[in-house]
Amino acid sequence: MMFRRELAQQLRVDSVRASAAAGSGHPTSSMSAADLMAVLLDGRLRLDFSRPHEPGNDHLVFSKGHASPLLYSCFKAAGAIDDTELLTFRKFGSRLEGHPTPILPWVDVATGSLGQGLPVGVGLALTGKRLDQLPYRVWVLCGDSEMAEGSIWEAFEHAAYSGLDNLVAIVDVNRLGQTGETMHGWDLDYYAAKAKACGWRTIEIDGHDLEQIEAAYDQATTPSDGPTVILARTKKGKGVGAVEDLPDKHGKPLDDPDQAIEELGGVRDLTVEVAKPTVEGAAHEFSAPGGELPHYDLGTEIATRKAYGEGLRALGNRRPDVVALDGEVSNSTFSALFRDAHPERYFEMYIAEQQMIAAAVGMQARNWRPFASTFAAFLSRAYDFVRMAAVSRANMCLMGSHAGVAIGEDGPSQMALEDLASMRAVHGSIVLYPCDGNQTARLLPQMADADGISYLRTSRGATPVIYPPEESFEIGGSKVVRDGGDITLVGAGVTLHESLRAADLLAEEGVQARVIDLYSVKPVDSVTLREAAAQTGGIVTVEDHWPEGGLGDAVLDVLAATDSLVPVRKLAVHALPGSGKPAELLQQAGIDAEAIAKAARQVLQGA
Amino acid sequence: MMFRRELAQQLRVDSVRASAAAGSGHPTSSMSAADLMAVLLDGRLRLDFSRPHEPGNDHLVFSKGHASPLLYSCFKAAGAIDDTELLTFRKFGSRLEGHPTPILPWVDVATGSLGQGLPVGVGLALTGKRLDQLPYRVWVLCGDSEMAEGSIWEAFEHAAYSGLDNLVAIVDVNRLGQTGETMHGWDLDYYAAKAKACGWRTIEIDGHDLEQIEAAYDQATTPSDGPTVILARTKKGKGVGAVEDLPDKHGKPLDDPDQAIEELGGVRDLTVEVAKPTVEGAAHEFSAPGGELPHYDLGTEIATRKAYGEGLRALGNRRPDVVALDGEVSNSTFSALFRDAHPERYFEMYIAEQQMIAAAVGMQARNWRPFASTFAAFLSRAYDFVRMAAVSRANMCLMGSHAGVAIGEDGPSQMALEDLASMRAVHGSIVLYPCDGNQTARLLPQMADADGISYLRTSRGATPVIYPPEESFEIGGSKVVRDGGDITLVGAGVTLHESLRAADLLAEEGVQARVIDLYSVKPVDSVTLREAAAQTGGIVTVEDHWPEGGLGDAVLDVLAATDSLVPVRKLAVHALPGSGKPAELLQQAGIDAEAIAKAARQVLQGA
Repeated sequence: MMFRRELAQQLRVDSVRASAAAGSGHPTSSMSAADLMAVLLDGRLRLDFSRPHEPGNDHLVFSKGHASPLLYSCFKAAGAIDDTELLTFRKFGSRLEGHPTPILPWVDVATGSLGQGLPVGVGLALTGKRLDQLPYRVWVLCGDSEMAEGSIWEAFEHAAYSGLDNLVAIVDVNRLGQTGETMHGWDLDYYAAKAKACGWRTIEIDGHDLEQIEAAYDQATTPSDGPTVILARTKKGKGVGAVEDLPDKHGKPLDDPDQAIEELGGVRDLTVEVAKPTVEGAAHEFSAPGGELPHYDLGTEIATRKAYGEGLRALGNRRPDVVALDGEVSNSTFSALFRDAHPERYFEMYIAEQQMIAAAVGMQARNWRPFASTFAAFLSRAYDFVRMAAVSRANMCLMGSHAGVAIGEDGPSQMALEDLASMRAVHGSIVLYPCDGNQTARLLPQMADADGISYLRTSRGATPVIYPPEESFEIGGSKVVRDGGDITLVGAGVTLHESLRAADLLAEEGVQARVIDLYSVKPVDSVTLREAAAQTGGIVTVEDHWPEGGLGDAVLDVLAATDSLVPVRKLAVHALPGSGKPAELLQQAGIDAEAIAKAARQVLQGA
Repeated sequence: MMFRRELAQQLRVDSVRASAAAGSGHPTSSMSAADLMAVLLDGRLRLDFSRPHEPGNDHLVFSKGHASPLLYSCFKAAGAIDDTELLTFRKFGSRLEGHPTPILPWVDVATGSLGQGLPVGVGLALTGKRLDQLPYRVWVLCGDSEMAEGSIWEAFEHAAYSGLDNLVAIVDVNRLGQTGETMHGWDLDYYAAKAKACGWRTIEIDGHDLEQIEAAYDQATTPSDGPTVILARTKKGKGVGAVEDLPDKHGKPLDDPDQAIEELGGVRDLTVEVAKPTVEGAAHEFSAPGGELPHYDLGTEIATRKAYGEGLRALGNRRPDVVALDGEVSNSTFSALFRDAHPERYFEMYIAEQQMIAAAVGMQARNWRPFASTFAAFLSRAYDFVRMAAVSRANMCLMGSHAGVAIGEDGPSQMALEDLASMRAVHGSIVLYPCDGNQTARLLPQMADADGISYLRTSRGATPVIYPPEESFEIGGSKVVRDGGDITLVGAGVTLHESLRAADLLAEEGVQARVIDLYSVKPVDSVTLREAAAQTGGIVTVEDHWPEGGLGDAVLDVLAATDSLVPVRKLAVHALPGSGKPAELLQQAGIDAEAIAKAARQVLQGA
């Protein structure tokens, strides 16, 4: 225990030193959990820091990402980084950012938006049990403030439901949030009652008593049929009188770090031998017999969401690493087809979109390729998780069905009209919006190969198949589906079909419209668009989306960047829609063929 | 009981009829809760349907918004709508949309994105107790599938913490979701244990036993120190053998509605006398002594987030209807200043952004004017709630602090770089991004007057005061802060100051740059931008935001709409930032003065 006590003090001292060197950071939130981490490092954690991607390694997630000084101090104590690097904390160019990100090889996912680490931990633990089929453990350090996030309780429910006995949550109940006391202070029983009700094993301890901590880890690692939470009563800033258990000490370096270091017994240079994983070996591999992507005959009709389901099922036959998750709408997104073909790689996440995305992030951290689907409108529920997934450098695929007013009668709550904008504004994202079945199916393997977050928008209603099955589609490409030199119509998905109808109407008037299928909204095909700007008298963009941030803005951005000075008319949904038939709503929104043809005429007349 | 039994059957029959007439809808999800609503309407609910905005009225929120056929059937039974209108369900132009919206005067908020009605109900109940100070009750009908949403558990925690004895949640546990059974089926004890652990009074009943329902409402309306949940075991499609308790019957009209109606005893035309509120009277009014908005002297420095806090505190002195909510970062957003001055109108929502926005939506439904604040990055946590608030025609104000790479050391998890895009893509929204203290403070009264959702983006660091206190700012306006005819620089917030520095650099080279402060990103000042396009040789836009959907795209949209054919260079953040000093990160992102001046030179040289 003496070593552990010293180790804990070193973690505190190093948290104080790193924050002092940075001039910012969260030392007090680190000091409360130092004892918990010291005991974990010394004998409990099984992680080979020299081989961070070893499949059998345990995973340590700091859901309270602001305790990064503690995490980095652990890395130093484990010999993974040296003291010089520790003191680069928060400096420009350092790997030791203000909140942890996976540019550090021992960090699976970025944290810092509270309430995300535990749901991601559920994803890692699901991966361990069902995908990797390895006995690693997932340890998640949570703060008590973040227990107010609903996503934490999605995680509690799913972890118990899935019997994740390989998951241990450690809650650092230091009672003090950023601005004051949490709702429940040191009422460990409150948290325990909720966790128990969810089906977790609960352990309440004094988080500064090394023997209690040891006993808690003993208990947490004995066989069980579900996850364990250790609720640890701690003091923020523990060990330094000037800050211990005091308000207004959040998120700032200590006023007198030298005095604090002295009070903590001075600088140490202990190294802890973190245990290596006991079971070596590779992750489980599923079989994938191979096979063709679905083929659809020209002129038939199929909804792109259904082609997604059929395509994903086929992709699962070709790639053993592909897994699917759905938010309890798999019969609408057609991910049910994947579920039925590959039940062992399908995850029903029920109506918990945040947990769904977090689970996908956890799975991709172990090199699986998740496809997560729900109504496009409801992906907005998990927007912060998608945002953070980009900071995590996650490689994953999202599918949102039922986009736009074209869904019809269900009304605006179910209509995604902001998804192109919000998904384009995710760092490094890919945004695709196919218009037919073959295009949809053929984009899926490319999504599965792509780095970063790719998003596929699909439609509710059936649309005609306009591409032959042998046509190929690149991310970043487009298709000129009708040639013409007078004016250019740019659509995607539902509005591509309206644009084709508009071209028919214009042709009757002797106007030859070029129609571009801009199925890759991001990245966007600047060459084809620039050519169209140079070769035709104007451009009409049309999208089943609000006017802001979608397909039209993607086109304008290209034209501005290339100084293509051509008149552009952007058609989009301006008024809040209600219920109605799809055709009625497309007409009302001014994005149907007639509206497109009218806009084209106005551009040509210089109106 | 005979009347209630008949009434319940009428609600079922009308749900079947409305869905059959529409050819879509959710009759089976309506039939499970018909008994619960029949007893509620007959003697429990106190709502004067002829005076829907009567302050003393109870509130009835269908959190399971897809049970709209049941809600509309209740309205018919209460005499609020007639049978002819009932049968317009889901038709183009009808008020009876697929999911309820407030175009119906008895609907407070739009639902249909699951897990939102209960958190909004918490907002209404908070309003009743603390703002209106009226004894109305808030009844929320929840589905069991939506109990998987974390936001529901944010609501459970907050309602108990706030002692909302005026809130009754009725959970229609019909066990069947859209695709299959829920995680917990008919395990009422599971839900009860969680609710109890949160501090709720729980009642478990057979939801088809009218006497048990009556007794449950009796119990739910006896004095208590907190909220009550009635967990009702029900059968989906109750009363019709072809669908009752069967899978795959979700979200579609019955195959044989005539047979179903016959089985339910035929069409009835009962009217129920819904009780009127027993206590008449107006909502409480707070005092507002009046006073000045804060004044900042030219050349001093203040962070716009601090000016927000000082301005909001002053606004609270002028407008008694202004209330503030914060996500446990009030010392960062400076909403703490409002809290200290007006504690009775401040709501600490802890780290539960979804519940924060939902509470604001509930408050505005009772005509209070909420200002809800947190870090701009964390508003993304509640994006679906903001989206739905627009469908609710909500009038409310949001403030997001700590925008962009300019926050510095905290790193990308805390940097809002997608907020302009996501907030612009909210229907009818206003997006403001002030650069100095006076501008910030003067925009607040206009936000408080504006219809719809207005969003104010503020900065972490102090910026120079460049406008005198007497300057006025309109939503939809802009300011030419420096005149010049050679080139135009467009910035806002932090980048407006960088643009001014760039203009200085360019002036040294003899280039006269016009600098536009585009503080109103939406709506945007097309006149001033068009003038600049016509009068200068090009435009450089610069924003501390991803390239997609923000300030630059707003400018391009205006120029495209007006055929202003001028070269535009968009500067924005392209690479994922890390930690560093603000100046280092602005430089790395290519959005500091030097980068702006360089881009201006390139435009002028036609590069």
